[in-house]
Amino acid sequence: MRSALLCAAIALAAIASPAAAEQLIDNVNGITLDARGRVVRFTGLVIDDEGKVERLLERGDRRPERPDTRLDARGRTLMPGFIDAHGHVMGLGFSALTLDLTPARTLAEAQRLIADYAAANPQRPWIIGRGWNQESWGLGRFPTAADLDQVVADRPVWLERVDGHAGWANSAAMRAAGITEQTEAPAGGRIEKTGRAPNGIFVDAAAELVQRVVPVPSPKDRDAALARAQDILLRLGITTIADMGTSLDDWMTFRRAGDEDRLGVRILSYASSVPEMLTIAGPRPTPWLYGDRLRMLGVKIYADGALGSRGAWLIAPYHDAPNTSGLSLIEDTRLRNLMSRATMDGFQVAIHAIGDRANRQVLDAIAELAESYPGGDRRWRVEHAQVLSPADLPRLAQHGTIASMQPIHQVSDRQMAEARLGPERLSGAYAWATVLRDGGRLAFGSDVPVESADPLAGFAAAISREGSDGQPAGGWQPQEKVTREQALAGFTTGGAFAGFAEDRLGRLAPGMQADFVLIDGDPLEASPAEIRAMRVAETWVGGRRRFVRR
Amino acid sequence: MRSALLCAAIALAAIASPAAAEQLIDNVNGITLDARGRVVRFTGLVIDDEGKVERLLERGDRRPERPDTRLDARGRTLMPGFIDAHGHVMGLGFSALTLDLTPARTLAEAQRLIADYAAANPQRPWIIGRGWNQESWGLGRFPTAADLDQVVADRPVWLERVDGHAGWANSAAMRAAGITEQTEAPAGGRIEKTGRAPNGIFVDAAAELVQRVVPVPSPKDRDAALARAQDILLRLGITTIADMGTSLDDWMTFRRAGDEDRLGVRILSYASSVPEMLTIAGPRPTPWLYGDRLRMLGVKIYADGALGSRGAWLIAPYHDAPNTSGLSLIEDTRLRNLMSRATMDGFQVAIHAIGDRANRQVLDAIAELAESYPGGDRRWRVEHAQVLSPADLPRLAQHGTIASMQPIHQVSDRQMAEARLGPERLSGAYAWATVLRDGGRLAFGSDVPVESADPLAGFAAAISREGSDGQPAGGWQPQEKVTREQALAGFTTGGAFAGFAEDRLGRLAPGMQADFVLIDGDPLEASPAEIRAMRVAETWVGGRRRFVRR
Repeated sequence: MRSALLCAAIALAAIASPAAAEQLIDNVNGITLDARGRVVRFTGLVIDDEGKVERLLERGDRRPERPDTRLDARGRTLMPGFIDAHGHVMGLGFSALTLDLTPARTLAEAQRLIADYAAANPQRPWIIGRGWNQESWGLGRFPTAADLDQVVADRPVWLERVDGHAGWANSAAMRAAGITEQTEAPAGGRIEKTGRAPNGIFVDAAAELVQRVVPVPSPKDRDAALARAQDILLRLGITTIADMGTSLDDWMTFRRAGDEDRLGVRILSYASSVPEMLTIAGPRPTPWLYGDRLRMLGVKIYADGALGSRGAWLIAPYHDAPNTSGLSLIEDTRLRNLMSRATMDGFQVAIHAIGDRANRQVLDAIAELAESYPGGDRRWRVEHAQVLSPADLPRLAQHGTIASMQPIHQVSDRQMAEARLGPERLSGAYAWATVLRDGGRLAFGSDVPVESADPLAGFAAAISREGSDGQPAGGWQPQEKVTREQALAGFTTGGAFAGFAEDRLGRLAPGMQADFVLIDGDPLEASPAEIRAMRVAETWVGGRRRFVRR
Repeated sequence: MRSALLCAAIALAAIASPAAAEQLIDNVNGITLDARGRVVRFTGLVIDDEGKVERLLERGDRRPERPDTRLDARGRTLMPGFIDAHGHVMGLGFSALTLDLTPARTLAEAQRLIADYAAANPQRPWIIGRGWNQESWGLGRFPTAADLDQVVADRPVWLERVDGHAGWANSAAMRAAGITEQTEAPAGGRIEKTGRAPNGIFVDAAAELVQRVVPVPSPKDRDAALARAQDILLRLGITTIADMGTSLDDWMTFRRAGDEDRLGVRILSYASSVPEMLTIAGPRPTPWLYGDRLRMLGVKIYADGALGSRGAWLIAPYHDAPNTSGLSLIEDTRLRNLMSRATMDGFQVAIHAIGDRANRQVLDAIAELAESYPGGDRRWRVEHAQVLSPADLPRLAQHGTIASMQPIHQVSDRQMAEARLGPERLSGAYAWATVLRDGGRLAFGSDVPVESADPLAGFAAAISREGSDGQPAGGWQPQEKVTREQALAGFTTGGAFAGFAEDRLGRLAPGMQADFVLIDGDPLEASPAEIRAMRVAETWVGGRRRFVRR
């Protein structure tokens, strides 16, 4: 009785003055893919009171008479929110809050940034940062502790390489970590030396020798980092990101945000280890939490390192370092055990593999696991899949495997990759079009904060294989460009499918989450240079406007 | 427009045939306390569609005309669901799933139970259990590894004492843990010996020497244990429990249950350590989660052990062991540091203190902290507060301190306490009435699984200080009995206040959660023996019937 009366009152109120939340976004240049991957155009979007798409309107379709709100988009492009299929959410937040060395184009510029940051932050007991890349400095060597000691000697300095696969310490940091000539590098790691003395560079697993003495962030620091990461992602139009390597502390930070309704971006979480996956999610992937804003569905495993630090595991030695073929980070047996452990409880497996040898190892393991666990919808993810032997490329299309690739890496890595790989191996590098031609599935991402998360830059790279300067004109290894529609799929439906979310994310259609961006300009029509210059004007997640460019 | 139409449709449907959920529980012998602690009687309860109390009805009040559901309670007593202010949720679940030795009244009976369990569970690599109490066996000594080896020699056996303050291992378990004559007990622990050889008993902190090699439960085991614990609690009429010492794994288990709507009992969580508190809750207590069903609001700290194992820290030596005064588990400075760490971020502190020396230490620390953090509503909790020097008893009423006590302990411990304490100290033992007379606040609980969680048994103990056999007639130290109304408060409003939940739990009044039980018989009228024989007929949490006795 009471509820009947209450509802009648609401009904009256709604007729007199709309209070609930049916929303109309009208006058848009609407673009989405449909369930079969075809481009659909529309001119209006109706959102229901749960933040889902009610319907798409074409020119001439009747508009709702009294939507609760109506927005005239004045011809802007409205397209699905971008899905970044591979990023590091907390890494992005922390890198935005700590010293960022990515602008440095020379060692001297890096030193100036470090000195300025230390002077501006006298209360910080450690100087922490990331983003250096000696390759772009033309240094011809790694930087050293001595280079750092020149600018900061009073406290420890610890700086991660741009790809996260090496760390650079000053002498105070090495002292704090107890590093001496006698310190041995752990398996999967390398300590760079000058003569017999460690010179400040710790590659891959060796970085942990210093990392373990770095003060850990407080929960408050973590909350601030997540807030910052979300700001950055929403500003770039990213409405969903796959977090590749969620630690327990990361997860607790995501949950705090969810519990307090501070989770604006959707996070598909892959645990940073099997034990963390089991602690967090328990006997199976978590349900979708907070209205599809958070879910742990799998685990991230590393097969090798990265090209820049020569940690990527290659079949043949490095072209520019014939004494090494990189580092394998996991033995075959252990890889299969971890994959089994995850798979038997229905968790998805995402394996980092950059070098051709690592990719072969992973594809071998997938083939074997697919046989052991037949019938299921496993969606084995190979993360990066950067360099493959031509013989292995078609295998990326087998067993329901997904190639989770980052177009922007190709642009940033081009010259380094040429140096590392030499000419023969380049045809199997960043081979997006080949993956699709072989019938494989792509999911595009950024690897943020290794790269900028900007999906429009990634989109432009995917269709042009040109750098931000337009070089090389016509594209590097241009046969591997993808079409605009394929790039759109890579950054929307591809990422949704890779995260078992194609029933709710990645497309605009009735019942799907109303996650979208408004952009000046049409990425399906514009030139790569125009696309790189585009800026997201608004970002909506679940029917809520989460970012507006002022 | 759309929502207006939809709502009008609902309104019509509601008039034709009620679909929403206004519920009437009628014809009840209703009892609750009001905000000022006075007993209120009523005959009907109306629950709104959010599961909260809409109103209490007196005889003659008009009933809702068309409630969505109506239950005739046929005169049963309806009272607020019991709040257990001190229990161990996962411990309860695991003890229900593992070997339970509490029924054993002699060593021989315990041995038979162990042998039977081992025979019935041949696949279990370890035999795990708890609940033994050599005091009730008339053994005059601790049991030994040899006693266990007689019945299980093929695999490790590890059995916790009833109070959780000692463990009993067989030789296989000691071998697995690498225990030898050379093994030294850690600070705060003791290894019992026969001659120079460890004989199987590990007291307090020493138990960890064996515990650390016991296989840890899987997430699936944990989920099963939580389900079992909830079944037991709901069957006993407990709708809210303070979980004293939530580990990270416990918390993740609670969250899984909440995420999947399997959380039937409300849990007020106190982390088992400050680091776990910070990892789980972050910079402040969590919000209420899952509709007031879960919240982490503080931390549990141990000041001493328990009387039974002579781990309680006394001012004067044990009456029956003049060579020891028990064990202090934390230094003054560390206790203050942990309390500060929690308090400065708004977390509540709950400190286990059983012996009079430990209680003095805790009261000293509270006095000091209350001065360092003035003005706030801190609600310092002293857990157990079992034995206090008469000089210290009035201090339990200072600084907003709460005495979180377990009436059933008095009944179970009586003879043991007399032996341990001798006659002089008994007047300050389990001194509930004195706490109230001094103006202090009580919260009653059970310490389940150390004791049965049955709140009606606790209620009877509180008002009678007689055992389940009615002995000693008239009550032990009868001046410390409380009134029926005080017992009701202890198990309802007292526990709510102790958990910062008095705005939503513990009483039945408009806007409060509709958490209640139906019982045959009236605890405010019946004799202690009758109350002990009462059984809860139904348990409702948030307006949902969660248990019905068949």
